[in-house]
Amino acid sequence: MSRSAEPARPAGERYRALIHEPGVKSIVVLDQRALPHAVVHQSIEHVDAAADAIRSMVVRGAPLIGAVGAYGLALALERDASDAGLSTAHAMLDATRPTAVNLRWALDRVRARVAALPTDARAGAAWQEADTIYTEDVALNAALGKHGLALLRDLVAQREGRAINVMTHCNAGALATCGFGTATAPLFLAHAERIPLHVWVSETRPRMQGASLTAWELRQHGIPHTLVVDSASALLMRRGDVDAVIVGADRVAANGDVCNKIGTYGKALAARDNAVPFWVALPSPTIDWTLDTGDEIPIEARAADEVLRITGRVDDGTAGRVSIATDGTPALNYAFDVTPARLVSRYITERGIAVDVRSLHALHRNGSRGR
Amino acid sequence: MSRSAEPARPAGERYRALIHEPGVKSIVVLDQRALPHAVVHQSIEHVDAAADAIRSMVVRGAPLIGAVGAYGLALALERDASDAGLSTAHAMLDATRPTAVNLRWALDRVRARVAALPTDARAGAAWQEADTIYTEDVALNAALGKHGLALLRDLVAQREGRAINVMTHCNAGALATCGFGTATAPLFLAHAERIPLHVWVSETRPRMQGASLTAWELRQHGIPHTLVVDSASALLMRRGDVDAVIVGADRVAANGDVCNKIGTYGKALAARDNAVPFWVALPSPTIDWTLDTGDEIPIEARAADEVLRITGRVDDGTAGRVSIATDGTPALNYAFDVTPARLVSRYITERGIAVDVRSLHALHRNGSRGR
Repeated sequence: MSRSAEPARPAGERYRALIHEPGVKSIVVLDQRALPHAVVHQSIEHVDAAADAIRSMVVRGAPLIGAVGAYGLALALERDASDAGLSTAHAMLDATRPTAVNLRWALDRVRARVAALPTDARAGAAWQEADTIYTEDVALNAALGKHGLALLRDLVAQREGRAINVMTHCNAGALATCGFGTATAPLFLAHAERIPLHVWVSETRPRMQGASLTAWELRQHGIPHTLVVDSASALLMRRGDVDAVIVGADRVAANGDVCNKIGTYGKALAARDNAVPFWVALPSPTIDWTLDTGDEIPIEARAADEVLRITGRVDDGTAGRVSIATDGTPALNYAFDVTPARLVSRYITERGIAVDVRSLHALHRNGSRGR
Repeated sequence: MSRSAEPARPAGERYRALIHEPGVKSIVVLDQRALPHAVVHQSIEHVDAAADAIRSMVVRGAPLIGAVGAYGLALALERDASDAGLSTAHAMLDATRPTAVNLRWALDRVRARVAALPTDARAGAAWQEADTIYTEDVALNAALGKHGLALLRDLVAQREGRAINVMTHCNAGALATCGFGTATAPLFLAHAERIPLHVWVSETRPRMQGASLTAWELRQHGIPHTLVVDSASALLMRRGDVDAVIVGADRVAANGDVCNKIGTYGKALAARDNAVPFWVALPSPTIDWTLDTGDEIPIEARAADEVLRITGRVDDGTAGRVSIATDGTPALNYAFDVTPARLVSRYITERGIAVDVRSLHALHRNGSRGR
């Protein structure tokens, strides 16, 4: 694995989270831990490095870790394409992060694609399948964005042209996907067609993905935004300063419960108490039809250190971190929570808008993943 | 104003937030900005220094800033005891922080005490009145704690002796008062009588008073506790890991709406959604009978910098701070929110427990402050 600081990419998305050049047997990822203060790319040439990148959150975001997992399996098969090698690599990658379902979905998909092939054909097929997952994710983002844009247009019409205030949480943006995001896709499209828009970005403790990733993405695109602490959400809604909340999802259960970054459930409660629409943006690979309710979703508990120490840029411009409590303070760090389906106003998917879980099922009847 | 690092005080409370030695024409305060990493005391000898200490949050917490304001007025009268001097100092101190009502209440009380006196008697009377406010606050804490303890005993009885999990927010502890706190008073008493107790401490962005003050206080007293990010509250309640929430208040309106640290309203919503009791601890000076509802309470917006930069201890042990977003990121920093009375399960006051706003009025009928 090599690391190098690189300049901005001139592509449609200025900074791509994941790049796989055709024919190359490695991938390049943007190290999201260094953002927004530095743009650092990592070249990943071994399955262990892919697993590390997911585990340590060099890459994060449910769709993105799915794609990186798929490429990771291709990397593993380059070295050992046996049944045992496939099984071991699948298990190792699957264990890196437990909550998002996209990772398992992508790994299963690559495995299903290659399992019946002779070993010497497996790696090539895995690269192809990973590329397909990547390309499909870009298309999912675009379709989902178009449907979400329609909701934003309705909101603007209701607001008689004044700027609309949309709140988001964590980062369900370009940096969480292969394309231009899930929750942010409608925002980018709205801004592109000059809908007057302002975004409330909640910082998203403990890792501050709102402050470091979403605010940074919005800035790259010139979309007006304001950063707030996570617990300001309810007040802003009570003041009438939020017209809609739009968040991503790491896993959605068959009953429509939504597992997403810690703090999402609280935002949904605040939205309900103040009659603010609460929208969840999810591509279909995020739905887990095998789970009846959100209570069955495994909630990842990450290291206490993420709560106790905060990483950022110190005044001299270098990276640093500060402790917020005395050494030895016990801390607990659940990374996700579950928002009950009853609090969701709309599900925004690549196949259209669902007003409730029944309509979500209807939209995805043909895409069920084997329940 | 002089600063000096001092060792721990051996008093009942090991670290007192405010000290006034009899006959001395200055006060000493604990610089809460340096906690938990350093114990630094400030001697305050001029009204301007008192105002600065409140404004810059060397001292904070509604009851404590009331007392420091009262002493500040005494300091002002030492130099200029004229009507104009009294009026100017009252206005300057009152403007330091707009949300908590205790500051205005304490300033008005000192002014009422001295206004009719000849100028040469005013400073002495002001010191006396400030001392009385201090002493009364200690007694209020104790009485309030006793009533809150009864609620905790009930909870333990319901839980059949297993440890109870109480969540608090920000710091309504000894460091927010002259005594041993409002929200924490029942906790300290419960721990003293060996009620099995564990406290969830929410860190309280942006200034981290939960992490730096409450966790620190609990540790001094040996009370088991765990630090979590603010937005973990709703998940913990949904998991059944919280038996009660207890918070302080900066101002309570006549209809029972509670203004407190940003994030309190969200916790109250999560408590309601999960049938967790939500208790507000408030001494009577925190009630503002002149305001019909919480919507009339002025919400302080502090500097964006508190959101954008986090202060703590760097690895070499010195104080430092890190930026969490790129320079120039817009941020908004409301310091308080308003929890509607309908979400409050119990008001804990020094006169007893109120189950709703009518019973709060009944308890305080004789203590109405002129409505």
